[in-house]
Amino acid sequence: MTQDPYPHPPIDQITLPEVLHALSDPLRLSILKVLMSGEETAWSGFSVSVAPSTLSHHMKVLRNAGLIVNRKDGTRCFVSTRPEIDTRFPGLVETVLRLCPCEKPSL
Amino acid sequence: MTQDPYPHPPIDQITLPEVLHALSDPLRLSILKVLMSGEETAWSGFSVSVAPSTLSHHMKVLRNAGLIVNRKDGTRCFVSTRPEIDTRFPGLVETVLRLCPCEKPSL
Repeated sequence: MTQDPYPHPPIDQITLPEVLHALSDPLRLSILKVLMSGEETAWSGFSVSVAPSTLSHHMKVLRNAGLIVNRKDGTRCFVSTRPEIDTRFPGLVETVLRLCPCEKPSL
Repeated sequence: MTQDPYPHPPIDQITLPEVLHALSDPLRLSILKVLMSGEETAWSGFSVSVAPSTLSHHMKVLRNAGLIVNRKDGTRCFVSTRPEIDTRFPGLVETVLRLCPCEKPSL
């Protein structure tokens, strides 16, 4: 059996400080802004000025905080929002993204 | 002229990631919960299980993020909320503290 390359923590184990830490970075905020539309997006489509390993690190922080879902399909990686986070911490992500002046990274 | 022991940054220079980072710690969240009443509180009155130098560090992080005001009076240190943060990022602190299950440190 192949190990899941992207383990997602149970939503009820995620703490508020973890989510706030994940949100405390401009690049991670801009990734979430892109995903607000609700559509699944390929990692390769993000035009960000960081190395792939750095992007992968940021995705891991967001995933471990319950903010996103990562999916691997062959050699491609995809990302989408994780809606349960709004059940766990109602209104938090919406409030933060409303206040965020960050630019969306182009797709 | 004596240097201000507690410099407070101009509120318009504070960024959203800085505020979210300051909020991403359980002890800092519980300090803010105590201060929600709006009353100025003596540092010495916080019954927290950390060393004075650690408490001082957390106060500095909160102060640099525009979340609190520190004041020295002789040898005593006091802390209160900084209301301008709600003008800079409307609703943010209120939303976070509403979701925060943290215990108030006793006074």
